[in-house]
Amino acid sequence: MDQLEPLAEIAHQTVVFPDGLALDCGRSLRSLAVAYRTYGTLDAVGGNAILICHALTGDQYVAETHPLTGRGGWWSSLVGPGLPVDTDRFFVICANVLGGCMGSTGPGTPHDERPGEPWGHEFPPITIRDMVRAQKKLVDHLGIRQLFAVIGGSMGGMQVLEWAATYPEAVFAAIPIATAAHHSAQNIAFNEVGRQAIFADPDWHGGEYWRERATPARGLAVARMVAHITYLSEQALTRKFGRRLRDATSLTLLDDRFEVESYLQYQGSTFVRRFDANSYLSITRAMDFFDLAAEHGGELSRAFEGARTRFCLVSFSSDWLFPTPASRAVVNALIRVAANVSFVEIASDKGHDAFLLDEPDFHRTIAGFIAGCAEHRGLKPRERA
Amino acid sequence: MDQLEPLAEIAHQTVVFPDGLALDCGRSLRSLAVAYRTYGTLDAVGGNAILICHALTGDQYVAETHPLTGRGGWWSSLVGPGLPVDTDRFFVICANVLGGCMGSTGPGTPHDERPGEPWGHEFPPITIRDMVRAQKKLVDHLGIRQLFAVIGGSMGGMQVLEWAATYPEAVFAAIPIATAAHHSAQNIAFNEVGRQAIFADPDWHGGEYWRERATPARGLAVARMVAHITYLSEQALTRKFGRRLRDATSLTLLDDRFEVESYLQYQGSTFVRRFDANSYLSITRAMDFFDLAAEHGGELSRAFEGARTRFCLVSFSSDWLFPTPASRAVVNALIRVAANVSFVEIASDKGHDAFLLDEPDFHRTIAGFIAGCAEHRGLKPRERA
Repeated sequence: MDQLEPLAEIAHQTVVFPDGLALDCGRSLRSLAVAYRTYGTLDAVGGNAILICHALTGDQYVAETHPLTGRGGWWSSLVGPGLPVDTDRFFVICANVLGGCMGSTGPGTPHDERPGEPWGHEFPPITIRDMVRAQKKLVDHLGIRQLFAVIGGSMGGMQVLEWAATYPEAVFAAIPIATAAHHSAQNIAFNEVGRQAIFADPDWHGGEYWRERATPARGLAVARMVAHITYLSEQALTRKFGRRLRDATSLTLLDDRFEVESYLQYQGSTFVRRFDANSYLSITRAMDFFDLAAEHGGELSRAFEGARTRFCLVSFSSDWLFPTPASRAVVNALIRVAANVSFVEIASDKGHDAFLLDEPDFHRTIAGFIAGCAEHRGLKPRERA
Repeated sequence: MDQLEPLAEIAHQTVVFPDGLALDCGRSLRSLAVAYRTYGTLDAVGGNAILICHALTGDQYVAETHPLTGRGGWWSSLVGPGLPVDTDRFFVICANVLGGCMGSTGPGTPHDERPGEPWGHEFPPITIRDMVRAQKKLVDHLGIRQLFAVIGGSMGGMQVLEWAATYPEAVFAAIPIATAAHHSAQNIAFNEVGRQAIFADPDWHGGEYWRERATPARGLAVARMVAHITYLSEQALTRKFGRRLRDATSLTLLDDRFEVESYLQYQGSTFVRRFDANSYLSITRAMDFFDLAAEHGGELSRAFEGARTRFCLVSFSSDWLFPTPASRAVVNALIRVAANVSFVEIASDKGHDAFLLDEPDFHRTIAGFIAGCAEHRGLKPRERA
């Protein structure tokens, strides 16, 4: 892989909160920027807002062309006019997470004490709850007292759970998808491999790669590759690639030969053109430290005591990164406090990735749950032209 | 991690075959060295020999102190006096695989054309069958016409299957453990991550790290880390480490904090002191290319047609790298050609690693199968002092 230039600087729609943000680690950010996108129109009483929370490598461009890659929105199969999250009916908000690299405050934005430099690896360690606090400031800024729904998969689902636990009055309905109330030992281990690969890259420069106008692209690509394997089921990998040789004329020691290898290398190399290594470290750490039960005295159900939020949890049968038992543990905690909860395991052989794909049963589940909640909330039905 | 010296050079018990070895890739090695260890005594008719085949990062020191690490033999729970593979009764042989780095011909041994230099990344691509051919030369050299048994787990099990397919008359009993007749797309993908991590290391020097007296230790450590995760079940990882913080006084972005992380780093860093990066590349490639059905016209059962070898396959219930269905596929192929086969899935929550551990049901299975085969073969019972 050739040496890459630092990430292109592009303008994002951003709101700046000059009062900053107090973080779980005890430190404070003096100023907080939250980059976000909205779709649809907020109704007169502010009752039709849906917040989408993105996953580790997602961003705010949920339902439109991505400004860096030129690809469609990462959840454009689910979010848009007439889709399960219907932007003709709902006001949909999606913000880049705190610690991200698409405009929100993070390792790549200016250092509080040395404004001419980015934070880099000196960016304070953040938590999923810190991410949610930043989103809450955005939601308040937009004049929304209660979100109709908060939806997210994977790390987005962690944020949904944190929203329901931290701001229960502000969440009418919560849809945590393919997620867990804490990261497993295996998930932490895979993240650690990715981090070590970044640290091993000569372009890492101890986290100050920006000083050298370098980026630890090879390490970040390896991190992405290992993560990508965990997003797919064995069946999905086999179906996509099997053991087809990309070029079967001869065997060599150095060349990649199986289709799966060149695909993984492609995935890794495109990723580094849109993602910052220090953000990757910051956000994977936040995932690894997430433990909602630990935030509530070791008892998960206490996180949801007195909850009036309506929950719909979704897992996918072949997801081995956030397997069904992880969702079921949350469901059981909700049941213990008599919360309103439904749970669906979607049969799919596509692995963790299924939540991003066009899975009809999944989309029907989301659409049905939203319709029921909207009726209960007294939202007027979608006006048809 | 500090810069490491190249691997220590130590003397191994070795036999050199001056006629070399013809390889599957079409090239030939001019000379072939096979490093090996034996335990016990060969009987007068040469009928009590058991060949042990080692896995990716194993070696010939199966049942004695390792000369580099000072640790016990890697299978000393199974192989030794009075153990299931009883060295008081059997003559046990274990050879370092072709491509390895413990004395057998491989990337670290002298280049055929430039004897003052090692092969390095110019070492010809090898296959599991090439490894088995090298072992066959050793077995012939030792005067053994038929092995009483060939035993191995993981990549060692691939070699056992290849032995039975390539030299059926030379194998009385075959015990392939926790293995498969081909590497899955997921396994190939994990190996590819490891290879890319090595390529990304600045000390890799395009495979000629030996010229710089360097070794791509960080990349190799990352490769070992990701592999190590795949050897453990989620339960084993959680039981070993859970989410215990190694030092819970504060959060930082760069330090490792979970016990699982420091363990993985430790595993990675000790590994690089005993293993050569080019060997790792060479052997993982051989595993990835292994496809016993493809060697027999796409039909696995043809590999075993007319087989008189007695087979005992073993899988472990929580092994997700070589899961039970992979063993079952081999069993079904053997049944289709009316081979003599038994199959046991051992209930274990220790993952792929279980085959190296002291699992009583597993050891009973091996001991029982060997006893039955010995009786059938007419070996005299073990003499007790």
